Amino acid sequence: MHQDFSTVEAFSRLLQDLPEEDEGARAEAHARNGQLTKPPGALGRLEDLAIWYCAWRGDPRPVISAPQVIVFAGNHGVTAQGVSAFPAEVTAQMVRNFEAGGAAINQLAREFGARMDVHALALDRPTADMTEGPAMSEAELLEALKTGWEAVDVTSDLLVVGEMGIGNTTAAAAIALALFGGETEDWTGQGTGVTGGALQHKAEVVARAVEVNAARGIDGIEVLRRLGGRELAAMAGAMVRARMERIPVILDGVICTAAAACLEVTRKGALDHVVAGHESAEASHGKLLENLGKPPLLSLGMRLGEGSGAALAIGVMKGAVACHSGMATFAEAGVSDA
Amino acid sequence: MHQDFSTVEAFSRLLQDLPEEDEGARAEAHARNGQLTKPPGALGRLEDLAIWYCAWRGDPRPVISAPQVIVFAGNHGVTAQGVSAFPAEVTAQMVRNFEAGGAAINQLAREFGARMDVHALALDRPTADMTEGPAMSEAELLEALKTGWEAVDVTSDLLVVGEMGIGNTTAAAAIALALFGGETEDWTGQGTGVTGGALQHKAEVVARAVEVNAARGIDGIEVLRRLGGRELAAMAGAMVRARMERIPVILDGVICTAAAACLEVTRKGALDHVVAGHESAEASHGKLLENLGKPPLLSLGMRLGEGSGAALAIGVMKGAVACHSGMATFAEAGVSDA
Repeated sequence: MHQDFSTVEAFSRLLQDLPEEDEGARAEAHARNGQLTKPPGALGRLEDLAIWYCAWRGDPRPVISAPQVIVFAGNHGVTAQGVSAFPAEVTAQMVRNFEAGGAAINQLAREFGARMDVHALALDRPTADMTEGPAMSEAELLEALKTGWEAVDVTSDLLVVGEMGIGNTTAAAAIALALFGGETEDWTGQGTGVTGGALQHKAEVVARAVEVNAARGIDGIEVLRRLGGRELAAMAGAMVRARMERIPVILDGVICTAAAACLEVTRKGALDHVVAGHESAEASHGKLLENLGKPPLLSLGMRLGEGSGAALAIGVMKGAVACHSGMATFAEAGVSDA
Repeated sequence: MHQDFSTVEAFSRLLQDLPEEDEGARAEAHARNGQLTKPPGALGRLEDLAIWYCAWRGDPRPVISAPQVIVFAGNHGVTAQGVSAFPAEVTAQMVRNFEAGGAAINQLAREFGARMDVHALALDRPTADMTEGPAMSEAELLEALKTGWEAVDVTSDLLVVGEMGIGNTTAAAAIALALFGGETEDWTGQGTGVTGGALQHKAEVVARAVEVNAARGIDGIEVLRRLGGRELAAMAGAMVRARMERIPVILDGVICTAAAACLEVTRKGALDHVVAGHESAEASHGKLLENLGKPPLLSLGMRLGEGSGAALAIGVMKGAVACHSGMATFAEAGVSDA
């Protein structure tokens, strides 16, 4: 249906020509919202969410019946620097847990009626240690972007992209520092449980990675290559594919958001089809979301990744759209307007 | 099973002898939580919610399979003072809308798999105008408490109580002022859409009601009688019944919370089986929740009532419990611990 890409440059060109929301569907949805049996604005953000969803789906009265959750997993050479509380083999162990249905994301996907797919990206070949140079070659980046692109079920109607990758909060912190500047400490969080001196060391690793890669103020996709990882690139690829197919996306935590930010910095508006599912407890996530102008739907102190916060927000999206599409109008119900 | 009540005094006595959570189930749930395949604390508030739910259900690994949403409707004599943007007949019209399945709460109950019941309480007999004396007689209060008590399906495993009643944000504001003191303006919000001079008038009505009824610093159940309404009393009755049956309850907005507050003021700990589903856009709700020590799960600018904010939070509760009860342990999944 839509054009594919065979080089990273071609992927970047796609970003310059993205489909936009359907203004007609937005107008119709807005008009319908004003007639529903409730005081104006009484459903708060649910109203905006529903109208936004309608606009992207090109349907003034849609249902959400086929959400997809995709979890991408990757390994990171930077774990050699001792930045995580868990050993790197946990990435592969958790992939098996996803496949067996035992992780948090499995329970949440099931609870909210989402199809769940897991893609392990070359776990036996960690990215290069980004404190010594770029994490990925252009070929590796391309392969990961394509994995994400192809993982999207184009018949789905809502997408959550999640991740697993020991060391990837370090990658996310480096990306945020490269894209948005500021202090390293502002962007470096505890990840799976790094505190005190280990957290200070992690911040030094983040700063070194950005410096070694001369990554401040450069193109967002190039930041993704130098400081990202395969699962981050796959998430970015999936988000762009969703845009092409007009599938709204829910952002998860700091890693997912860092991957998304690479797109937005490259092309303003690239995340117009994306909503922030939650604000995680990871220190920098709120600041990242602010930089993207994305207020979170939930704020429950989660910091697990896997797409878990976003999957929980599927419920909010479903509720919003169910109200919008299922409620009676004042005229239908014979209720007096204000 | 549990003792019933035939007078308001007997209802108040029940409050002094409430069942408490199951400490054994809490301890088992806490232990299980520590073994699940996630970094410690990474599911944030979901972990606390799940353990709390286990403790009340007396089951360290429960499922939520039978939530109930009950909407109570009542009419208020204080509407004669011109405190609402909608006419009083909207209460009955909305009850028909609930029964026909056209309201927001119908869509949310269906989306989250909840049984929904509607109880219209003597809509043709509004409560007395509380600016002239008590809103209800003791017999009227008792009848409403019993309606709520009996409306609870004792086989349900999670309860949302919602309301509809033109004029009832005025009642809620008066209750909050009587229970917690402070400035009338702090407790008086826009309800269905009252602003400017009309809002100032509403605040004056609230202050007059509290003064005429000499309602500051008196017993919470008596505040409910003098300043409440049938739907508020029914919500209170349902919440106490849920406590007797160890059914956790999710609070909705300002009206539901004001009814609940009458219980907590009467007997500290009466709301230990209750969680705040959301913080509404109604000005005083956040302050009410603070007074009750109940941080909200959601904050989406909703201000519809009907139980809508609480119903949306059923999704959060289901997600929390699904993770707790469905996830694999580190040992089961063969994942290395930190």
